[in-house]
Amino acid sequence: MKTMYWKDDLLYLLDQTILPHETEYLVCGSYQDVITAIKTMVVRGAPAIGVAAAFGMVLAYLADEDMEKAAQEMKDARPTAVNLFWAVDRIMASDDPLKEALLMYEEDMDTNRSMGRHGAEVIDDGDTILTHCNAGALACVDYGTALGVIRAANAEGKNISVVCDETRPVLQGARLSVWEMQQENIPVKLIVDGAAGRLMQEGAINKVVIGADRVAKGGVANKIGSLMVALAAKRFNVPFYVAAPKSTFDYENSIYDIEIEERDPVEVLGFAGCFAAPLTTEVRNPSFDVVPSDLITGIITEDGILEPF
Amino acid sequence: MKTMYWKDDLLYLLDQTILPHETEYLVCGSYQDVITAIKTMVVRGAPAIGVAAAFGMVLAYLADEDMEKAAQEMKDARPTAVNLFWAVDRIMASDDPLKEALLMYEEDMDTNRSMGRHGAEVIDDGDTILTHCNAGALACVDYGTALGVIRAANAEGKNISVVCDETRPVLQGARLSVWEMQQENIPVKLIVDGAAGRLMQEGAINKVVIGADRVAKGGVANKIGSLMVALAAKRFNVPFYVAAPKSTFDYENSIYDIEIEERDPVEVLGFAGCFAAPLTTEVRNPSFDVVPSDLITGIITEDGILEPF
Repeated sequence: MKTMYWKDDLLYLLDQTILPHETEYLVCGSYQDVITAIKTMVVRGAPAIGVAAAFGMVLAYLADEDMEKAAQEMKDARPTAVNLFWAVDRIMASDDPLKEALLMYEEDMDTNRSMGRHGAEVIDDGDTILTHCNAGALACVDYGTALGVIRAANAEGKNISVVCDETRPVLQGARLSVWEMQQENIPVKLIVDGAAGRLMQEGAINKVVIGADRVAKGGVANKIGSLMVALAAKRFNVPFYVAAPKSTFDYENSIYDIEIEERDPVEVLGFAGCFAAPLTTEVRNPSFDVVPSDLITGIITEDGILEPF
Repeated sequence: MKTMYWKDDLLYLLDQTILPHETEYLVCGSYQDVITAIKTMVVRGAPAIGVAAAFGMVLAYLADEDMEKAAQEMKDARPTAVNLFWAVDRIMASDDPLKEALLMYEEDMDTNRSMGRHGAEVIDDGDTILTHCNAGALACVDYGTALGVIRAANAEGKNISVVCDETRPVLQGARLSVWEMQQENIPVKLIVDGAAGRLMQEGAINKVVIGADRVAKGGVANKIGSLMVALAAKRFNVPFYVAAPKSTFDYENSIYDIEIEERDPVEVLGFAGCFAAPLTTEVRNPSFDVVPSDLITGIITEDGILEPF
C-alpha cells in the first residue's frame, strides 16, 4: 500500500488520520488541498511530506497559479522537516514539474531500499529493536526509513522483533508502526512512551532505530520524545541509530536554530477522540525535539552509515 | 476533598477512575471490596493505598474474617508500593484495628504537611516545577506528597508554576494533577510524557518533584516514565526531588529486587474506551520503573531532606 499516487492530474493521499481503522484515499485537486493535508497530517513523515509537496507544486503549475506564492505557502505548511523546502525548491528549479515529481517519487522508494540494505548490516539475529513514532512506509512513498531497515533485516532472514513507542500525542507508533509490522508478520509489541527506559533497564532492547525530520549541525530533529529515548539508550548502552535520506540533511543550520512546530493543544487534551483533562487546560505541544550528536551511534543513509556532523 | 473517609463501619473511597469528570464515592463493606478498589485503581497512590488497606483490614476484623488470610490477600492486591505491606502489618500488630487505622489516617495528613514544609525550602520564587503522575492529595488521604510540596511553596507566597506530564497509560497527570492544581489556582500546563525532555532542553523547567511507590536500596520505584524524566533532568542539570513519607522506605531490598507490576494490556491499547492500536496487539505494560540514586538530588520526607541510601 503506497501513501500516495498520481493519476489523471490528481494527487491521491492515503488518509493517515484514520488508519488503521479505515483505509481511504483523499483526492487533492489543488496545491491548497495538499497544504491542508500536510497541516492536518493526512500525510506525514518527512520523506512523504516532501514528495506530496512536489506534487502539490505540480498542481499549482497545472492550474497556472503564481508559483512563487504557492512555493512560499507550501513551505509554510510545517516548519521543522527540511524535505518540504528541498522538494519545493527542486520543483521550482525544474523545466518539467510533473516529470521531476514523478522522479522524486521513484527516487524515494529506491533511496529507502538502499538505506534498508546499509542499515540491516547493524542489525543482529535475535535483536529486539525499539522504534519511536512512524518512520515506516507510511512516512515515505513506500518501504520506510527506520522500518525499512527492519524490513530489510527481516527479509535477510534475521530473527528480529520490534517494540513500538505509542508516540503521543498523535499515536503514530500505536496506529501506524504497529500496523505496518503486523502486515509484515514481524513480531511487535506496543508500549507507552514512558516505558522505553524501563525496557532498556530490564535489558529487553538491543537497538534503537528512529527516523529524522531534519539532520543538522550537532544532531537531528525528530518527533517529540526522541530525545528521552536517546538519553535512555545512552544510559543503558543501547546503540541508537537514525535512518534518514540525504534529502533530510541540512548542512547550514544548527539543531538549536531549527524552528520547532508547536501544534494544537487539542492533540494533548485528548486521546483518539476521548478527553482526559478539562478542555480549558493550558498545554505545551512541541511536535519535535532535538537529539544531540553525542547520543547518536550512526546515521543510516542511502550512501551508508555516516557520523552526525 | 478527601480521597476516603470512614463512617458507620463502612469505608468510602473517592472513585479516581472517573475523575475529573465525575466525583463519586464508592462504598466498601468488606475487605474484598477494598482489594478490588486497589486493583482497579479506584484508590491509588502509595500513601492512599496504605490507609485504604488499613481500613480494609478493619472491615475484615469487624466481619470476623480469617485475619491471616485477609492480610495475605490484601498484600497481594498490588506488588510494588511498600505502604500496602506496612499498613497491613501495623493493623495485624494492633489490639484495636479501628483506632490504629484512624490514627494512620490522621498521621498521613500530618506527615504530608510536614513534608510540604521541608520540601518548600528547595523551591524558589519563579520556579516552574515538573511533576509526573499524581503524588497529590488524591494519592494520599489529603494534601499530597510531591503536590504537597508545591502547595506549601504556593502557600508561602512563592510565585511558582507547574508542568504536568500526562502519564500514560492511566493519565493520572492529565486527569488528577492538572485538576488539583486548577482547584488551587496554581498555574499549570499539561504536556505529553515525551515532551518533558524538550521542555528541559529549552530551559523551561527549574525543578522536578515526584512521589515514590517505594524508596529502597539504590534509589526509588515510581510510576512508569519516572526514570526517563530523571535521565533528562540529569542531562540538563535540573534538580530532581522525590517526596515520600518514611512509610514508603524499604531498607531491606534493592530497587532491582522490587517486583514491578505488569498491568492489563487494555490500558496501553486505548484510553477511556477509545482505542488506537488493534485490540489483538501484543503489549508490555510495566506500571513502574526504578530511578537509581545518582539521578536523585534529594528525598523530601516528614523528617527533612534525606539522601538516597
